[in-house]
Amino acid sequence: MSDDKKLTPRATDFSAWYNEVVLRAQLADYSPVRGCMVIRPDGYGIWERMQRALDDMFKATGHRNAYFPLLIPESYLRKEAEHVEGFAPEAAVVTHGGGKKLDEPLVIRPTSETIIYSMFAKWVQSYRDLPILINQWANVVRWEMRTRLFLRTLEFLWQEGHTAHATHDEAEAETRQMLGVYRTFMEGWIAMPVVTGLKTQSEKFAGALRTYSCEAMMQDNKALQAGTSHNLGQNFAKAFELQFQDEAGEMQFAWNTSWGASTRMIGGLVMTHGDDNGLRVPPKLAPTEVVVVPIWKSDEERSRLLEAAQQLKTTLSSWNGRGDDRIRVHIDAREGIKPGAKYYEWELRGVPLRIELGPRDLAGNSCMTARRDTREKKIFSLDGIAESVAGVLGTIQDDMLKAARDRREANSVREPISYDRFKELMEGEGAFVYAGWNGDPAVEAKVKEETKATIRCIPDEEFRTPGGPTTCMVTGEPAKHQVVWAKAY
Amino acid sequence: MSDDKKLTPRATDFSAWYNEVVLRAQLADYSPVRGCMVIRPDGYGIWERMQRALDDMFKATGHRNAYFPLLIPESYLRKEAEHVEGFAPEAAVVTHGGGKKLDEPLVIRPTSETIIYSMFAKWVQSYRDLPILINQWANVVRWEMRTRLFLRTLEFLWQEGHTAHATHDEAEAETRQMLGVYRTFMEGWIAMPVVTGLKTQSEKFAGALRTYSCEAMMQDNKALQAGTSHNLGQNFAKAFELQFQDEAGEMQFAWNTSWGASTRMIGGLVMTHGDDNGLRVPPKLAPTEVVVVPIWKSDEERSRLLEAAQQLKTTLSSWNGRGDDRIRVHIDAREGIKPGAKYYEWELRGVPLRIELGPRDLAGNSCMTARRDTREKKIFSLDGIAESVAGVLGTIQDDMLKAARDRREANSVREPISYDRFKELMEGEGAFVYAGWNGDPAVEAKVKEETKATIRCIPDEEFRTPGGPTTCMVTGEPAKHQVVWAKAY
Repeated sequence: MSDDKKLTPRATDFSAWYNEVVLRAQLADYSPVRGCMVIRPDGYGIWERMQRALDDMFKATGHRNAYFPLLIPESYLRKEAEHVEGFAPEAAVVTHGGGKKLDEPLVIRPTSETIIYSMFAKWVQSYRDLPILINQWANVVRWEMRTRLFLRTLEFLWQEGHTAHATHDEAEAETRQMLGVYRTFMEGWIAMPVVTGLKTQSEKFAGALRTYSCEAMMQDNKALQAGTSHNLGQNFAKAFELQFQDEAGEMQFAWNTSWGASTRMIGGLVMTHGDDNGLRVPPKLAPTEVVVVPIWKSDEERSRLLEAAQQLKTTLSSWNGRGDDRIRVHIDAREGIKPGAKYYEWELRGVPLRIELGPRDLAGNSCMTARRDTREKKIFSLDGIAESVAGVLGTIQDDMLKAARDRREANSVREPISYDRFKELMEGEGAFVYAGWNGDPAVEAKVKEETKATIRCIPDEEFRTPGGPTTCMVTGEPAKHQVVWAKAY
Repeated sequence: MSDDKKLTPRATDFSAWYNEVVLRAQLADYSPVRGCMVIRPDGYGIWERMQRALDDMFKATGHRNAYFPLLIPESYLRKEAEHVEGFAPEAAVVTHGGGKKLDEPLVIRPTSETIIYSMFAKWVQSYRDLPILINQWANVVRWEMRTRLFLRTLEFLWQEGHTAHATHDEAEAETRQMLGVYRTFMEGWIAMPVVTGLKTQSEKFAGALRTYSCEAMMQDNKALQAGTSHNLGQNFAKAFELQFQDEAGEMQFAWNTSWGASTRMIGGLVMTHGDDNGLRVPPKLAPTEVVVVPIWKSDEERSRLLEAAQQLKTTLSSWNGRGDDRIRVHIDAREGIKPGAKYYEWELRGVPLRIELGPRDLAGNSCMTARRDTREKKIFSLDGIAESVAGVLGTIQDDMLKAARDRREANSVREPISYDRFKELMEGEGAFVYAGWNGDPAVEAKVKEETKATIRCIPDEEFRTPGGPTTCMVTGEPAKHQVVWAKAY
């Protein structure tokens, strides 16, 4: 794949398109270690903005950051029965350290419940020590066999929240609250609409009482699970003796929650918004929101245009109409590259707004703008340019969410369909299918085996089809739940 | 050690004092994994502020963040001869993944030169691709046998900058620039003065051409190496075939630099500023700069005082005289704990300024303040309180640096001393000894063996004793360099 070749169209091969966009937009690269990737500055810049926004929301809801060890004694993983079954097969195991074989092997954390709740047990004595509301930004390793850049890698970056509460209800409220935080972030920042809901018992987190998730629809109509929030019940508290004395003086086990979102969201961003010209980054997450391309033909023009571009950048980036969140501007002043080639490159890299500035624009006290999302071009006066640019960036952010939501709804099936039609859909174009389910895990397993589709969630009230299906799509029996079926990443 | 027991005084046992402060100020805790620690929210809050300040400085000097894999093929470590010799003995080795023995063992990164320069080699073709200016925030593992909270742990958090340049001089300028950034940060934020200079060949980074370091003096007169900046020459470029075509069309090896600073700096902060009452955090790094302790005797007073405290907090934290950097305030409204016990606790935890607010203060439109650094108490009018508080916080920051610098100079020996006197000093109270050295590594090794002291650095011009020693302290031969000797962490 040469750099000046056109991208494989999404319709031809969505998977090839995805890899090409990630590589050519320089978000990430393959590394010499199987299944591990390098996140390049343009990809990491998006991650930094994701981190900042989420971190602010975690702190606003009373959480504090901490850091726990990367290495976990193998015996810890084994203390919670479901947990070890879920994670032991994917473990990366350190057997040697400092030139010697270790007495007990250490596992690189696949997630940190075990090590964190063993520490909580040390810190909690009384109900006065509760709740504990902690978050950790960290890397984790899960030994996946089939990997994809951002979507599934041996190592990935994420945050994992871990809390302890005195009661079930408080833990449940926390679990739901953090699911809401994820949804707000994914819709408000990634412009990626999600269906929130409850995972079935066979799809829940290993060791949880209940798992809730955010399910987003990619452009190939497959689901991406983009964030999960778990009510862990007292499972880990019992395994690690996380107890407290309640107000009556009785010893009680604490109730835990955990919740995580990862660099996988960057893959979700690409597959939600990218087009056949490349990446489209929602303005709120774009390390560069505006690229200014000055156009010149002579040396005299060049110095004049560069100066004007610099002035424009200063005007935009010093404007405080968005408070501390200044407009992020880059000037592409490279020599020896034609403006058209620059436009092409910045479209590929997904910068939300391009401003072209030539001698004629300058003479007219205006500039030409091009939106990346719609590719719409429009002349802006240089008077009040910051307000105009901020306005269009806001519109782009909103329009991207709306476009993604419209696409999702257009590819959701809400009328009752037969299981045969369902199978056709899953073999063909895919969809989110809202259907009745009798609640039997055997039916769930059969559908998964026959179609590779899974129940993404039992959707929250607001996502359900009103007066929805009353019978199970597969058996025709009375439906116990309305569920969302889809193939997933 | 019970929580209400007094700390071991520094003069009695500095090492015990250090551990007690770290644990009781809740900066960190021991974990169930040997040599690995848990960084608790109060410690991590300091680290977050360190990260933010350094990251801003890295970006202001043109660097961008990226992320490279945790796991490195063992063969990569072996490609640079000095590097493998330095790091292989400390390696944590992953031999199994996904339930299977790996074909090639993977090492958890002890530092990332090898994996990063192998990627640079993929990205660089021409001189136009240079320089590459990258930084990574990451965890690393080095299998240390004797560990200390923050100072030496198996796993630690750090940043590692990695750059590639077309010429030696450019790489050298970058190496020096980043040493300067570290110094600015350590003095300006940690209020920890440092001596900068060149490491001797026996003390340099494994694989570097030259290593520069920041050396701080702790209160036991031992040195803490708090940040290092390496000119790596072409050593790694040759090992990983990091080549570029220069303007003349010739293939050249690139020149690399790397530079790192870690959570060890938190240990430096504790040992620079702590006193027998506990921690003292410099205001710029304090997650909480001001703690307000409302004092009440009756329910009526309580609600009035809590309201006044809340109003004070709002006044302080909404004041924008420091721009976006708002004053960070906490109200200690806990019931059932006497004001005196609260003062004691916040002194232990190192909050720079305490404000006591009682009914009488309120009646007089004033409050009582207590500086943590000097324990000086002073009445402030509530009129213009934000300016007053910001002013005293600035003074505390400056005074802490000055006090630390005065202490360092008072414990530095700049007049010529005999090697016998030197041995006495190193066995006793310790010091930074500025002395002549004949440049012979054998002399360096002999002193290290006999006294455990090492050459911390060949100090930069401004730190040298003017007209300093002309003869070697050990051999009496003509001195080749003026060096700083000290025992070190």
